[in-house]
Amino acid sequence: MPGLLILAKQAQEYRRLIEAAGLPPLEVTAVTEPDELAGDAPGCEIVFGEARLIREMLPRLPRLRWVQTTSAGVEPLLEPGLRRDYLLTNAFDVFGDSMCEYVFAYLLAHERRLFDRLRSQQTRHWDHSPGGRLRGRTLGLLGVGSIGAELARSAKHFGMQVRGYTRSSESSRAVDAYYHGDRVLEFARGLDYLVCVVPNTAATRRIVDAALLQALPPGAVLINLGRGAALDETALLQALQSGRLALAVLDVFEHEPLPPEHPFWQTPNLLMTFHTSALHEPHDMIRPFLENYARFTRGETLLHQVDFERGY
Amino acid sequence: MPGLLILAKQAQEYRRLIEAAGLPPLEVTAVTEPDELAGDAPGCEIVFGEARLIREMLPRLPRLRWVQTTSAGVEPLLEPGLRRDYLLTNAFDVFGDSMCEYVFAYLLAHERRLFDRLRSQQTRHWDHSPGGRLRGRTLGLLGVGSIGAELARSAKHFGMQVRGYTRSSESSRAVDAYYHGDRVLEFARGLDYLVCVVPNTAATRRIVDAALLQALPPGAVLINLGRGAALDETALLQALQSGRLALAVLDVFEHEPLPPEHPFWQTPNLLMTFHTSALHEPHDMIRPFLENYARFTRGETLLHQVDFERGY
Repeated sequence: MPGLLILAKQAQEYRRLIEAAGLPPLEVTAVTEPDELAGDAPGCEIVFGEARLIREMLPRLPRLRWVQTTSAGVEPLLEPGLRRDYLLTNAFDVFGDSMCEYVFAYLLAHERRLFDRLRSQQTRHWDHSPGGRLRGRTLGLLGVGSIGAELARSAKHFGMQVRGYTRSSESSRAVDAYYHGDRVLEFARGLDYLVCVVPNTAATRRIVDAALLQALPPGAVLINLGRGAALDETALLQALQSGRLALAVLDVFEHEPLPPEHPFWQTPNLLMTFHTSALHEPHDMIRPFLENYARFTRGETLLHQVDFERGY
Repeated sequence: MPGLLILAKQAQEYRRLIEAAGLPPLEVTAVTEPDELAGDAPGCEIVFGEARLIREMLPRLPRLRWVQTTSAGVEPLLEPGLRRDYLLTNAFDVFGDSMCEYVFAYLLAHERRLFDRLRSQQTRHWDHSPGGRLRGRTLGLLGVGSIGAELARSAKHFGMQVRGYTRSSESSRAVDAYYHGDRVLEFARGLDYLVCVVPNTAATRRIVDAALLQALPPGAVLINLGRGAALDETALLQALQSGRLALAVLDVFEHEPLPPEHPFWQTPNLLMTFHTSALHEPHDMIRPFLENYARFTRGETLLHQVDFERGY
């Protein structure tokens, strides 16, 4: 009987859901910290859980064959010097719908001026000025994986034009035009909204830099949901202070939680959320595990396998 | 050559767009007020414009055959004693997309707690609590005309369940379950969101009353975009003060602009907008006129003809 180690804050909830799924017999160990286990876990061939916790456990898993993370990002497992003698798969089709709702919440709030309307109400001002609309605007997706593809579908639903910038893939048909390689500034010119959903790799570090922000048309809006490291924070502050960008919405930061002295907290036209764009409900989180476990038991290729060199 | 009278604040813009559309020859008169015309307008068989202005002009149009309004509501033309010896058609497929963006702006803002997040940012509080999501929630549409149908399509896009309450029509297939007649309380039970888009008729006056609000589950959200008269304002204030309703979003009011002393301005959990949910861009507004004019010249039935007795 294969052994599964669940290593996550919500370990007991995951155990309950996995046991309720009626899988072929599995010996399940569920802990919230590696310290709860004494010594090695020689029976565990499979690990499901949080990348940061799994990294600590890596030396104590002599028969490890496969790790499924609960996150899309797997940076802790990519650090130099760590073993890479197992299959690593990351979460997929888990965050798309909640991140999509998040992005369209802010896009629509910007067009329909929700915060302005509240201020008018507070001052008893019958503010009959019209708002804008998404229909006809252009959305640029920096990164078109499963989350980007879902954003593209919603953008088309609302009648937007959609551009995608990727390394080479062109998998979503909801994207009207793709850009690759050195065409990132060309991609940026003409965007009303730029949404950054790139994974954290060497190639995407500071991809949103002064040049890219400068290439956006005046009045554009930036939303960063990918990784804080994708963004040059100083360049963003300048773009907001100069008034070139109308709004930035940031859910991720280079250092989280954001330190209290960071200028972002009080920068005008910058709205912060707190790494909350993706919802993490246990019944969503186990879906990729269940799908991949079925493949694993049949000896098939696992979905969303991470290339340790490429980093996603 | 038939004569067209354009009677609207944006008369010159409409004239430009209509002339640019390359219609069969039309003698066009465009004014912003009836007073700009001396005496009768005997050459005008067709009038396009604002219902309130057209009402004033009615006695001075001896050859009137057809009126196309720029609004969905046509109350001024339905008053007792006014002539009804012409075809009356109202605006259609004009407001759906902007009203839909408006509704989903507020639905998503509620789920993703946009105003709470801003308060957290203002107090430098890293608020990692999760938000909710639309997927799986139930939307009830009080009224399913062309606007309701568009709302239903977007609700399905976001994975919601959709109920519709109508007099008898069941025209939108995006609605999962229809309710009619005395089933309005049954319709209301189990709704997360109630969106009121009914026309202003005797049958819809105060349709959102204390009993309906009481039938909504605790924590429900009401959005009123239809007509202010559809809502019992006192009952709404009670439902908000008791905490039964989580939120009301109101775009229309019994008296507009809302008087400065009205309690709505400062009611907690009530967000006001200012009859701004529908955008009125001239190139949108003339589409129903152009479509119906083509039908008129071919002697065909006009679209969205108003039944003077029924009121819509």
